[in-house]
Amino acid sequence: GYPLALIGGPCVIESEEFTLKMATEIAKVCDRLGISFIFKSSFDKANRTSVDSFRGQNLEAGLKILQRVKTEVGVPVLTDIHESYQAAIAAEVVDVLQIPAFLCRQTDLLVAAAATGKTVNVKKGQFLAPWDMKHVVRKLESAGTQRILLTERGTSFGYNTLVVDFRSLPQMREFGYPIVFDATHSVQMPGGQGNKSGGQRQFVPYLARAATAIGIDALFMEIHENPDTAPSDGPNMIPLAHLETVLKQVLSIRNGLEVAPTVCFS
Amino acid sequence: GYPLALIGGPCVIESEEFTLKMATEIAKVCDRLGISFIFKSSFDKANRTSVDSFRGQNLEAGLKILQRVKTEVGVPVLTDIHESYQAAIAAEVVDVLQIPAFLCRQTDLLVAAAATGKTVNVKKGQFLAPWDMKHVVRKLESAGTQRILLTERGTSFGYNTLVVDFRSLPQMREFGYPIVFDATHSVQMPGGQGNKSGGQRQFVPYLARAATAIGIDALFMEIHENPDTAPSDGPNMIPLAHLETVLKQVLSIRNGLEVAPTVCFS
Amino acid sequence: GYPLALIGGPCVIESEEFTLKMATEIAKVCDRLGISFIFKSSFDKANRTSVDSFRGQNLEAGLKILQRVKTEVGVPVLTDIHESYQAAIAAEVVDVLQIPAFLCRQTDLLVAAAATGKTVNVKKGQFLAPWDMKHVVRKLESAGTQRILLTERGTSFGYNTLVVDFRSLPQMREFGYPIVFDATHSVQMPGGQGNKSGGQRQFVPYLARAATAIGIDALFMEIHENPDTAPSDGPNMIPLAHLETVLKQVLSIRNGLEVAPTVCFS
Amino acid sequence: GYPLALIGGPCVIESEEFTLKMATEIAKVCDRLGISFIFKSSFDKANRTSVDSFRGQNLEAGLKILQRVKTEVGVPVLTDIHESYQAAIAAEVVDVLQIPAFLCRQTDLLVAAAATGKTVNVKKGQFLAPWDMKHVVRKLESAGTQRILLTERGTSFGYNTLVVDFRSLPQMREFGYPIVFDATHSVQMPGGQGNKSGGQRQFVPYLARAATAIGIDALFMEIHENPDTAPSDGPNMIPLAHLETVLKQVLSIRNGLEVAPTVCFS
Repeated sequence: GYPLALIGGPCVIESEEFTLKMATEIAKVCDRLGISFIFKSSFDKANRTSVDSFRGQNLEAGLKILQRVKTEVGVPVLTDIHESYQAAIAAEVVDVLQIPAFLCRQTDLLVAAAATGKTVNVKKGQFLAPWDMKHVVRKLESAGTQRILLTERGTSFGYNTLVVDFRSLPQMREFGYPIVFDATHSVQMPGGQGNKSGGQRQFVPYLARAATAIGIDALFMEIHENPDTAPSDGPNMIPLAHLETVLKQVLSIRNGLEVAPTVCFS
Repeated sequence: GYPLALIGGPCVIESEEFTLKMATEIAKVCDRLGISFIFKSSFDKANRTSVDSFRGQNLEAGLKILQRVKTEVGVPVLTDIHESYQAAIAAEVVDVLQIPAFLCRQTDLLVAAAATGKTVNVKKGQFLAPWDMKHVVRKLESAGTQRILLTERGTSFGYNTLVVDFRSLPQMREFGYPIVFDATHSVQMPGGQGNKSGGQRQFVPYLARAATAIGIDALFMEIHENPDTAPSDGPNMIPLAHLETVLKQVLSIRNGLEVAPTVCFS
Repeated sequence: GYPLALIGGPCVIESEEFTLKMATEIAKVCDRLGISFIFKSSFDKANRTSVDSFRGQNLEAGLKILQRVKTEVGVPVLTDIHESYQAAIAAEVVDVLQIPAFLCRQTDLLVAAAATGKTVNVKKGQFLAPWDMKHVVRKLESAGTQRILLTERGTSFGYNTLVVDFRSLPQMREFGYPIVFDATHSVQMPGGQGNKSGGQRQFVPYLARAATAIGIDALFMEIHENPDTAPSDGPNMIPLAHLETVLKQVLSIRNGLEVAPTVCFS
Repeated sequence: GYPLALIGGPCVIESEEFTLKMATEIAKVCDRLGISFIFKSSFDKANRTSVDSFRGQNLEAGLKILQRVKTEVGVPVLTDIHESYQAAIAAEVVDVLQIPAFLCRQTDLLVAAAATGKTVNVKKGQFLAPWDMKHVVRKLESAGTQRILLTERGTSFGYNTLVVDFRSLPQMREFGYPIVFDATHSVQMPGGQGNKSGGQRQFVPYLARAATAIGIDALFMEIHENPDTAPSDGPNMIPLAHLETVLKQVLSIRNGLEVAPTVCFS
């Protein structure tokens, strides 16, 4: 069978030292388990619930840190962009440009990302049906790229709540590109803590296992040494200390999946 | 690890001969795979979309057929009841009384079912939060039973659509009773075909695998020799010919789950 | 224009004295405003969230009280039924039999209600698309009645929350029967207070005005002298002392609606 | 009472001649009815479903046309912006900058719009609870503006469907700014026609009346001479020929509302 990849890291770039340390530690775990690793961290949290929240480093400083991760830890890096002018700048450093879920239909942003030639990972909007991601794919393809990843991260379900419709994984797979499951933002409770988003970290291992049993190419998880003090997405990041256990579960499921014959009917 | 059970059968009791044949065939598959089997079929589809739809045998005729399944095939049987007077009558034959999702908050029905001493399987209402099933459990317990099963079968998501929130499985497990995942009705599209409900049979294996990876005690699937001609729930029943393959996948996942160490944090 | 009716009263039949007093007081308000009045109260809250909640009088005692309302206050009365055997019994007293939303697809209950010859008011299920109410209507019609009312009372929207899709009013009107808007249960928060349902009484006047502006035949509101101490649905009942003001708003809107020319395009 | 305003126009700027003609015609209707009028049209549909859809004029050409509307028709103009660099450029012409619903949490865009000193109209995201708009308001206020409008335009409800929760109007009003109801996009069916969004134009008058009965400061409607041939949002725009009738209904409701005493309890 094909290998599973992890896209992971702390939600936002905090200090240079901390970022390098986290990348190093996660890389070690992935090495031990034989999992490919792409380091993820955001230079800017452009859509925080509250204007008073920490937004991260600026673009230039953030990219400098990501370059060090790339060079010193030796892993590919991913970051998300929010306006089209950032695509070319970020592409000088990162291997994967990520389009946030709220922005998945912004044509200029998609086209600018595609034009860099880098892989583009688009998160399915919380407001979007899985089958409507085909139009997103078409926008990227018509801008000249086929280096595309599609990520499920939950769908609006009433207020302050997301639900994962796992049918979206096989549905999006039909577009012909690798499928990622974001176990961190799928358990987010948007705005659910007054002036910031809440989360349900305890369900991350369950949903990661479920997605693996359905069939994914990469698992996206945000990971932090101490999530409870993290400046962003703390409630839904998992602690670094538990990463290896979670990944072992996922690999066990995946091995089970690989020995099972497939079944297909409609 | 503990064994997985299958609750399965054709949606509704058709002819006596057909019902016995289906029970026999499913029992053979379960025997081969070492899965416990509870035969399910409804004597009455009391809440069909349209008044013109086939509703099944009457109570007396239906129970007579279920008694033959029990005696001749040698498996426990389950059926659903819709009004409280049916509980004691059905309990003379069946091993498990099932409370339909729409009726999961009807106190008289729950109390009557509990009073029979039989196991009661309650399906979580499409309109109910998983945590609110604790009140359903309390109603049953206060009526004197602890022989309780709780089933996830999807939650209302816009019109004519259900979504499974897989967080409900660990959430309902906290009430202390075995958890069932109904892979058939979870892919139902209520009213989605005009005067009957539609379904997405093709997603049954995916969701069954996902539920298994999360951890369930029993899998509920409706199975038919020829779903496309079945009088009820045809679009979401799986063909008998594919049952063994689907169950093998589920068992592979379950074996993977069992070798994985658990992880628990909050 | 055609007149507006009020279906109203305290959620559940408490004491005989209190029920008569409430009916008398609400009737006075409706008389002053020229609004037709149908008294509503339940003899049994069969689907309370918790088994420990007050369920009301039994059927016999409840009907005796409703008979006194009918005779002494001189208004028609409505109550809801939960199992088919109750239809004929309740029909000896009440003018309108109401089918609760959870039970709107139970064929036996609908047929038993229709068979009484009384008017049947069906609440659209929280899990049902407005267009699928046509099958409910067909079940009643095929049981021989055309004395039908259809009520909107909110649709499941995530967990513990309902939302009113006001498009349902013109959509259900197309079936040819009078349309009722239930402003009380539309602001219910099912299970939202742990072991009972919460509610948002403050939005009742807003939604009642909105429904009136769209066009309804009757407004359903639960009304209590002191909602905060009521045994059921307290958080969403309005205080008797405010009833006249709310109804005056509604009538002002209705008058505005009646002078406006209609517009219809598709 | 305070006056009602209309924010209206064709969805996207087509030709210069057509845009001027539509602005002139709508202004005439508003003049006759004594309604304030703000002309709305988009220079760029940056988030069309499909990459092949018409996106409108470019920024420069679009603004030139809007300037002519302003000068020649004598009405204020509104357009929407999608990236922060557009704010200052558009502000040279338009009176109101609009933030699209998908972008309502993009801090840089909000701050850039606020910095222009122009009024900013923010549409509530389809994924956002009404109470979470307070953080959007805070972002604008902290950027130095209090010239804010807040618009309801529907909330995600399952796939390809929006629902208007009319409780959002009084809820958002509590933030202290004028409230707008967008009757056009509230009946949009996102992605509901395969490669473009569908809509339910026939419900616009109903929802416009409902919002008016609840209490709004401005009504937002897209209007086109011939919606069925319009390049964007045709299915949910209303025909120019029906505008006056729809507005008369709305004014009748509003007059009814104004003579009604208010009621407020919680």
